[in-house]
Amino acid sequence: MSNQAITPDTAHKLLAESLGQMVLIKLRGGKTVRGKLKSYDLHLNIVLDDAEEETQDGGWRKLGTVLIRGENIVVISPM
Amino acid sequence: MSNQAITPDTAHKLLAESLGQMVLIKLRGGKTVRGKLKSYDLHLNIVLDDAEEETQDGGWRKLGTVLIRGENIVVISPM
Amino acid sequence: MSNQAITPDTAHKLLAESLGQMVLIKLRGGKTVRGKLKSYDLHLNIVLDDAEEETQDGGWRKLGTVLIRGENIVVISPM
Amino acid sequence: MSNQAITPDTAHKLLAESLGQMVLIKLRGGKTVRGKLKSYDLHLNIVLDDAEEETQDGGWRKLGTVLIRGENIVVISPM
Amino acid sequence: MSNQAITPDTAHKLLAESLGQMVLIKLRGGKTVRGKLKSYDLHLNIVLDDAEEETQDGGWRKLGTVLIRGENIVVISPM
Amino acid sequence: MSNQAITPDTAHKLLAESLGQMVLIKLRGGKTVRGKLKSYDLHLNIVLDDAEEETQDGGWRKLGTVLIRGENIVVISPM
Amino acid sequence: MSNQAITPDTAHKLLAESLGQMVLIKLRGGKTVRGKLKSYDLHLNIVLDDAEEETQDGGWRKLGTVLIRGENIVVISPM
Repeated sequence: MSNQAITPDTAHKLLAESLGQMVLIKLRGGKTVRGKLKSYDLHLNIVLDDAEEETQDGGWRKLGTVLIRGENIVVISPM
Repeated sequence: MSNQAITPDTAHKLLAESLGQMVLIKLRGGKTVRGKLKSYDLHLNIVLDDAEEETQDGGWRKLGTVLIRGENIVVISPM
Repeated sequence: MSNQAITPDTAHKLLAESLGQMVLIKLRGGKTVRGKLKSYDLHLNIVLDDAEEETQDGGWRKLGTVLIRGENIVVISPM
Repeated sequence: MSNQAITPDTAHKLLAESLGQMVLIKLRGGKTVRGKLKSYDLHLNIVLDDAEEETQDGGWRKLGTVLIRGENIVVISPM
Repeated sequence: MSNQAITPDTAHKLLAESLGQMVLIKLRGGKTVRGKLKSYDLHLNIVLDDAEEETQDGGWRKLGTVLIRGENIVVISPM
Repeated sequence: MSNQAITPDTAHKLLAESLGQMVLIKLRGGKTVRGKLKSYDLHLNIVLDDAEEETQDGGWRKLGTVLIRGENIVVISPM
Repeated sequence: MSNQAITPDTAHKLLAESLGQMVLIKLRGGKTVRGKLKSYDLHLNIVLDDAEEETQDGGWRKLGTVLIRGENIVVISPM
């Protein structure tokens, strides 16, 4: 996978606009996590506050603050 | 996976011609997403507007604006 | 995976001879795509015209023009 | 995956604040481990004391001190 | 995966001796392909002539000439 | 995955303290191996003496001396 | 995965001592191969003579001489 920082033009702009707002993140392996975007870095490592993960029955389980490694992220979507 | 930017000759040209138009993207793990191509970068990170993901029964679920990490993309196809 | 360009001697020659002709491409995860080879680059990113993907019942579904990321390609075969 | 150290701004800060406290770590492949964060490095390699892994019936099995390779970590969450 | 060329001492010698002869190649994901070794490069990308892939019932389906990306190869065996 | 050596502060210290002692190693794909830690290097490649792998019925099968490639290791735990 | 050569201290010594002798190799995806260690290189690419792969019923199928790409190797064990 890319070991270069992701160029600002595309990823960075969307994330900068979403700081402090809810985002939905789909991870490799099929999990989905959502929470308030607290910070991110150039590798798309992301910290969410008030994060929750989707359960198999479609509900949400509280995780609190989470650090997600960027390389496991497939899709990020502002909610 | 490649950690070099993708050369313009092939990938870049197809994407440049598709800006603002609908593209269909197949991801690793089998998911399919479609939406209006808003921007992309040299690593094939892609932002779609009005994105939808295919559901298991062949329908489409709205995602809104999404950032897709290039390294998870298998196929991009203008619609 | 290799982040160096693939040396011309092997991969490049076969692709250069196949430009404008039908090729069959097997992807990681088991999918098969075929189409007319329009262009490729040193990372084996490939653009096919009139592409089709094989369906589970052995038929072919039209995809149109597609960009395939080289790192997902297992086998390329001129038809 | 990233072979660059992870920038301090995001990952490092959360981990620095969690030293000596309980964290929950989700690994690739679906396993979950929790324990007291003893140390970490720039690659997110992590040592936990009093670590436990979740069992299939939702219980926890003692592991003692563990070294977790950063590249297998999906999510880290202070408890 | 290794993004350095493979040193000649081991891989190269076996392949050099097998040029023009039948080799059996096992790929990631479990597929098996065999054919006449036409060429290879330092990344173990391989071109086979008269290639066939093993079918699920143990037979062989003709593929013709194929280019196999080296990074998908697990085992190469002269026949 | 990381192609840099792992910094001593975290991984190295735990391993240095475990030389000659029993460690339990969990591998990608779910296997578990245990044995006496004989040596290791900066990439977390590990040699165990008197190694055993866990069988599906929860027993242990003798392997003798084994070399484990570091990149396949998820968790190392002194026993 | 590591794209640096593996340091001699650990991996190299065990392999040097095993030249010409039987080794058992476990591959990613669960396959097991054994044979006489003929040669290896710094990336752990390995050539075995008189190699056999384990069949699903616990028997062994002859493969002859095989080249195994190092990056697919999980465990190497002298027999």
